[in-house]
Amino acid sequence: MFRVTRQYRFAASHRLHAAGLSEEQNRVLYGKCNNPYGHGHNYVVDVSACGPTDERTGRVLDIRLLDQLVARQVLGPFEHRNLNAEVECFESVVPTSENLAAEICRRLKKNWSTAFPGEWPKLEKIRIAETTRNIFEIRTDEIE
Amino acid sequence: MFRVTRQYRFAASHRLHAAGLSEEQNRVLYGKCNNPYGHGHNYVVDVSACGPTDERTGRVLDIRLLDQLVARQVLGPFEHRNLNAEVECFESVVPTSENLAAEICRRLKKNWSTAFPGEWPKLEKIRIAETTRNIFEIRTDEIE
Amino acid sequence: MFRVTRQYRFAASHRLHAAGLSEEQNRVLYGKCNNPYGHGHNYVVDVSACGPTDERTGRVLDIRLLDQLVARQVLGPFEHRNLNAEVECFESVVPTSENLAAEICRRLKKNWSTAFPGEWPKLEKIRIAETTRNIFEIRTDEIE
Amino acid sequence: MFRVTRQYRFAASHRLHAAGLSEEQNRVLYGKCNNPYGHGHNYVVDVSACGPTDERTGRVLDIRLLDQLVARQVLGPFEHRNLNAEVECFESVVPTSENLAAEICRRLKKNWSTAFPGEWPKLEKIRIAETTRNIFEIRTDEIE
Amino acid sequence: MFRVTRQYRFAASHRLHAAGLSEEQNRVLYGKCNNPYGHGHNYVVDVSACGPTDERTGRVLDIRLLDQLVARQVLGPFEHRNLNAEVECFESVVPTSENLAAEICRRLKKNWSTAFPGEWPKLEKIRIAETTRNIFEIRTDEIE
Amino acid sequence: MFRVTRQYRFAASHRLHAAGLSEEQNRVLYGKCNNPYGHGHNYVVDVSACGPTDERTGRVLDIRLLDQLVARQVLGPFEHRNLNAEVECFESVVPTSENLAAEICRRLKKNWSTAFPGEWPKLEKIRIAETTRNIFEIRTDEIE
Repeated sequence: MFRVTRQYRFAASHRLHAAGLSEEQNRVLYGKCNNPYGHGHNYVVDVSACGPTDERTGRVLDIRLLDQLVARQVLGPFEHRNLNAEVECFESVVPTSENLAAEICRRLKKNWSTAFPGEWPKLEKIRIAETTRNIFEIRTDEIE
Repeated sequence: MFRVTRQYRFAASHRLHAAGLSEEQNRVLYGKCNNPYGHGHNYVVDVSACGPTDERTGRVLDIRLLDQLVARQVLGPFEHRNLNAEVECFESVVPTSENLAAEICRRLKKNWSTAFPGEWPKLEKIRIAETTRNIFEIRTDEIE
Repeated sequence: MFRVTRQYRFAASHRLHAAGLSEEQNRVLYGKCNNPYGHGHNYVVDVSACGPTDERTGRVLDIRLLDQLVARQVLGPFEHRNLNAEVECFESVVPTSENLAAEICRRLKKNWSTAFPGEWPKLEKIRIAETTRNIFEIRTDEIE
Repeated sequence: MFRVTRQYRFAASHRLHAAGLSEEQNRVLYGKCNNPYGHGHNYVVDVSACGPTDERTGRVLDIRLLDQLVARQVLGPFEHRNLNAEVECFESVVPTSENLAAEICRRLKKNWSTAFPGEWPKLEKIRIAETTRNIFEIRTDEIE
Repeated sequence: MFRVTRQYRFAASHRLHAAGLSEEQNRVLYGKCNNPYGHGHNYVVDVSACGPTDERTGRVLDIRLLDQLVARQVLGPFEHRNLNAEVECFESVVPTSENLAAEICRRLKKNWSTAFPGEWPKLEKIRIAETTRNIFEIRTDEIE
Repeated sequence: MFRVTRQYRFAASHRLHAAGLSEEQNRVLYGKCNNPYGHGHNYVVDVSACGPTDERTGRVLDIRLLDQLVARQVLGPFEHRNLNAEVECFESVVPTSENLAAEICRRLKKNWSTAFPGEWPKLEKIRIAETTRNIFEIRTDEIE
């Protein structure tokens, strides 16, 4: 059983602002991340899958298939976008890196079987580095 | 004669859009960087100064003074900001990384003598990494 | 359930020397790390906490609170220090990176509830890179 | 209980080509990695062991002993080699990074007790970065 | 006047062996790099151009044009290749990283005007990192 | 004409304290770097040489010769040392990174011809990263 991790990058902007809170509460809560004009990051996303190697190929998965899936579900919709304004789920959910990781996880999980129809590999976890100092991880089985 | 480089980081958002061009021309010119909602980066800024070492201290400069200058002139105004909307000079100038480097250079140069009143150290160059793959450098003496 | 990791850095010096052993045994055991004059490192410390996101904020924790805790318990006492001479617990314990990780873990664990009084987030693990090639990890629940 | 990781690097070349498949099947399966003349990588190998600290030394293991083991079992045979042509097990097994990780794991596991004869430390996992974007991990107990 | 650097990566294999020397001389000269089966690297190539910014666009160059040029002249012919066997110029020239840098420089210089027909930007230098520890640079004007 | 850079690393401790100044002046001048017990760093040293390639070998220099020179002149005396107490020149000179770079430059320059007796390669510059954020460079010809 192996874990295979592939790294992707995209640049995007966002603003942390919770709809149910007052302007002042948002300012206190998120500090400079609440700046109404937004700010941005170069997000680094590590997608990890696990499984046995295919005996014939010696590989856990064909990385080209993973690239296609991630391009369609993540890089296409998120690259050079404003997450609040252009990604539907962030209309009602604050685009913190935790929620971003969960959303990426949900998208890949939902479409996983179109890329990998067999029992293996399984999507295992998503890791997002928002900056080199702030890192967020979620395991697939913790997201419905 | 030494060169001393200190590295700083800030996250910001921007949109590439030239005022004198049509919507269509901007789209063709800047591609996804023209997205009207903006996008963002973790900018890495290297500030280089040069000079002889002070015989008494064995240093070219006191890095704490450079940190104060950069905090006041660059990190304060740029950190977690939208460059187009919140940095005055980018109202009329497209916030490409070239122009951003030039603006940082101009700000530090203009205020250099408040932090370093002597003949040395001299501000030498600014280097901005917009992503790990795109890097922009300007030498101080090429900016008025 | 998420894991959030925040990275900190400090520079310190130390000497590996076990009190209960002879000079010669120490020399054989620790080699150049036993040098009586000490040596030093730029330590990179990753602090990981886990928990669910707060529904209101979309975050596992407020990183500013973690920064304050780590500043008080780790960076303040360790930054630019000689670990053997200036950190009390290393008077009787050899300041290997294993013991340093355990000490950081103990300090954060003991003071965790002052920063994070609720059930979540929980401190999960400490990871120290002594150099880019030597890395030491400890899980919180393996330290009393 | 700690995890200690030590990082090693070696450069090698390989070709992905499965003996039981036709030329055409191999080309489709492995794409440019099937190039008959081979290609190469700078492999980064992280070897992780776990265990309690020795009370006397404050260390989980003596890194010099691990270095000797890895030099003998991995760096010696693999550094600046063609994996297909010069490492026996890859005559019949495709040298994917999964199989390379498994082979390194097997070699270290088989010879572990010559370097570390006691109950601890235990070899825990092997992680190979084939490029900065492709990472492969295997846990020791998943290899016989 | 700015310098703009764009980073590219490719994996390739090579063997250092000078045609005019004996087997023994080659072995002594190149050591393990002379291994007859070859070895490989993940090459990191930084391409630097310089010039003024275009007043209209605020950019020194359109990175998409540079990407196309480098894809055609460097990544296409070199990615996942054996340099000795598959790149014509290395039939008679030893594929050291110095010669590789010179060859990349020559290819880009020769085709520069098809991508950038104006006076600016000018190709300025090529930098190759063969490993993280070995770096080779050549300035364009030092190659005919 | 090429520039070849080779990277070395060593860990050491030091204290910034100028002999000609009072305790108080030293404290104000160097801040936490004046801590009487010292602190330490993982220094990263880039040694750059320049020259034409040898026509026969396709190389500017034999890196094994540079490694031997640097091992003898720099790594041997500095690795895991206290610079103030164990490197003679720092008895009277403050071991700032500027002075450290100058000392390394002086040592390599003085012994260069034993490793490289010909006209080429020439030692060109020394670059020291004291931390990932603080970098110091000196050109050989600026040191006598």
